[in-house]
Amino acid sequence: MTSKNLEPVRWRDGVLEVIDQTLLPAKLAYVRLRNVEQVGAAIKTMKVRGAPLIGVVGAFGLVLSVKKIKTNNLAEARTQLRQWADLLIRTRPTGVNLRWAVERVFNASAKAEEVSYLSEILSKEAVAIFNSELEAARNIGKYGAPLLEDGDKVLTHCNAGALATVGYGTSLAVVRAAVEQGKRISVISTETRPLLQGSRLTAFELAHDKIPVKVIVDSAAAQMMARGMVNKILVGADRILKTGHVTNKIGTLPIALSAKFYGVPFYAAAPVSTVDMATDPSMVVIEERNQREVLYIAGRRVAPRNVEALNPAFDVTPPELVTGIVTDRGVAGPPFVDSLRSLSG
Amino acid sequence: MTSKNLEPVRWRDGVLEVIDQTLLPAKLAYVRLRNVEQVGAAIKTMKVRGAPLIGVVGAFGLVLSVKKIKTNNLAEARTQLRQWADLLIRTRPTGVNLRWAVERVFNASAKAEEVSYLSEILSKEAVAIFNSELEAARNIGKYGAPLLEDGDKVLTHCNAGALATVGYGTSLAVVRAAVEQGKRISVISTETRPLLQGSRLTAFELAHDKIPVKVIVDSAAAQMMARGMVNKILVGADRILKTGHVTNKIGTLPIALSAKFYGVPFYAAAPVSTVDMATDPSMVVIEERNQREVLYIAGRRVAPRNVEALNPAFDVTPPELVTGIVTDRGVAGPPFVDSLRSLSG
Repeated sequence: MTSKNLEPVRWRDGVLEVIDQTLLPAKLAYVRLRNVEQVGAAIKTMKVRGAPLIGVVGAFGLVLSVKKIKTNNLAEARTQLRQWADLLIRTRPTGVNLRWAVERVFNASAKAEEVSYLSEILSKEAVAIFNSELEAARNIGKYGAPLLEDGDKVLTHCNAGALATVGYGTSLAVVRAAVEQGKRISVISTETRPLLQGSRLTAFELAHDKIPVKVIVDSAAAQMMARGMVNKILVGADRILKTGHVTNKIGTLPIALSAKFYGVPFYAAAPVSTVDMATDPSMVVIEERNQREVLYIAGRRVAPRNVEALNPAFDVTPPELVTGIVTDRGVAGPPFVDSLRSLSG
Repeated sequence: MTSKNLEPVRWRDGVLEVIDQTLLPAKLAYVRLRNVEQVGAAIKTMKVRGAPLIGVVGAFGLVLSVKKIKTNNLAEARTQLRQWADLLIRTRPTGVNLRWAVERVFNASAKAEEVSYLSEILSKEAVAIFNSELEAARNIGKYGAPLLEDGDKVLTHCNAGALATVGYGTSLAVVRAAVEQGKRISVISTETRPLLQGSRLTAFELAHDKIPVKVIVDSAAAQMMARGMVNKILVGADRILKTGHVTNKIGTLPIALSAKFYGVPFYAAAPVSTVDMATDPSMVVIEERNQREVLYIAGRRVAPRNVEALNPAFDVTPPELVTGIVTDRGVAGPPFVDSLRSLSG
C-alpha cells in the first residue's frame, strides 16, 4: 500500500517533524518543530491539521515543552507544564482530540518522581498515543469497509485521510480498507473552502494511492446527490457528542441535509477518542477563524476593501441526519446516546 | 439612490459597452463590444453574467450581427441572422432569458421589408427589451419589499443584483426597495465559488449602496441558519419552470434544503421572462463549465496535476423547498403550476 509512505508526523530521537500541509500538493516537505511554541504555531496556522493528527502533534509539543523547565522542584515543573498544556489546547478550541492527547501526556507527568524523568515519561506517553492512533485508523477501516460496496461513489468533505491522522485516515481509512478488499470505489471530494483541504489534500492522497477522485466546489455536493452521482457520504469529525451531534469542518451540515433529502447514507468516521461524553450540544465552541481566509485568495483580496467576512471553521450536524458513526471499536447507529456510550465504555 | 450609477450595459449610437465584471471589485471598467463575436465571447467568459443582463446583451449582440450581412436578399439575410442568433444562444445554454431576448429580436426581423431596415428595427426591439428589464427590476422590488421586515437578516447567493441586470437587480431589488422604504436590512452573501460573484459583485454593489453586507464561504450558509443569524433567503433564478423548479447558480439547492430544515423562508426573485412554461424538469440542460474554474485559483493550480474536476454551473431547487417566487407581476406561491401560469398569462 503506497499510502504507508505518507507519514504526516515523525518523532525520532526527540526531534519532531511534520509535513507542512499548507504547501501541498505542490510540495511535499517536512518542517522541523524545535520547541513547544513552534508546535503551537504549526497547529494554529494549520501546517498540521486534522483532529487526530493535531492531537498527536500536540502531545509531542508538550514533550518538547519539558526542555523549557528550569527548576528541579517537581511541583513547580508540573505547574509550568500545565501552562504549556493550556497554551497548546487553546490553539484549536473545537476539536476534542487535542485536549484529550495533551491532557493524557500531562497526566503522565504524575508518574515522575523527579523533574529529570519527565522527558522520558512524557515521550513514552506521546509515542503510545501515536501508536494507538495508527491502530485506531486501521480499525476504523476494518469496521467501516463493510459499509461500502463494489462500485460505490463516495462523497467526502475536507480531509479525513492519512494527512489528517498519523497515517491511513479516518473517513478515507474506510475507503482504503474497502479498496484493499478489492472493491472498486470512486470518490468525489469537495474542495473545502476556505483552506481547500479537499482539492489540496484529499485529492493528493487519493491520487497518490491511485483511488479515482474528482473535485467539486463545496456547493455542488447537493447537485451530485440530486443527479445520482454519489451514493454514500463519508466525512471525518473533530468532535462527536454523546448525543451523536457531529462537529466537523464547515460545510458538513449542508451535505448531511442534502443526503437526508436524497436518501443517501451519511457516515462520520473518527476514533473513539473523538467522542466527547461530557459536553452538551449547546456548549460547543465554534472556532471563528481569521476573515482573511475568506476575503483573500492566494494573497489577493477578492472582496471589496470595506467588506467583512464571517468565518466559522466548523458546523454541527444533528444526529437525525447521521446514518452511522464509524469508530475504531465498531459502527455506532441511532440511538447514538446508547451506541456511543457502549463503544466508549 | 447611488445604485443608479451602476449601469452594467450601455447602448449609445450603435455602440455597446458593458462593465467587465471579471475585473470587479478591484476595477470598475467598461469594455466596448464591436461585433457579435465579441458579444458571444463576453457572455461565455462571463465578462457579463446574470440571466437578465445576458439576455439584454445578447439582444444587442444580434443587432450588431446585422453589420456582417453582405446580401440585399431579405430571406438570405434572415438565414444569416438566424445563425448568429443560434451562436449567441449557445454561449450559455441554461438560462432562459438569453434565448427569449435573442428570439424576440430575431422575430422582429420579420417586420423588415428590406435588408437596410434591419438595423433600425432590431435596435428598437433590443432597446425595448432593455427598458422593460429595468421596469421589471423596479417592479420586482415593489412586489418583494413587503416580504422583508425591519431588522431582517437576508442571506443571498451569487449575484442577482444591479450587476446581474440592466440595473437595480432581482433578489437585490427586493432588498433595495425594502431599504428605500426605511427598513433596516443586513445581508450575508455567500462568496459563490468558483467565480466568486458573491464576494466580488454582491458585496461590491451592496457596499456601494451602503447596505450592510458580510461574506461567508458557500458551505457556511447552513450554519448561519442553525445559529439564527439569517431569517430570510433571497436568490435570483436563471430559469424557473412552470412547476416552480428554480434553476440557479450551483449552491442554491443546498441553501434551500437548509432553509427548509431550519424553517427559514426561501424566495427566488426573477422577471416573468425567466419563467419557462415549456420545459420539463427532467429536460433542463445543466451547463458544465471548464474544470479550470475549480482546479485553479487566481491562475495557480491548487489540486494535484493528475486530478480532474466536475463543474456544473447550476442546480435545480424543487418547488417543495420554495416559499415564493417574486416576479415583476407579483409574488407566486405554491402551488406554482397555478400561480406561475396566472402571472405569465
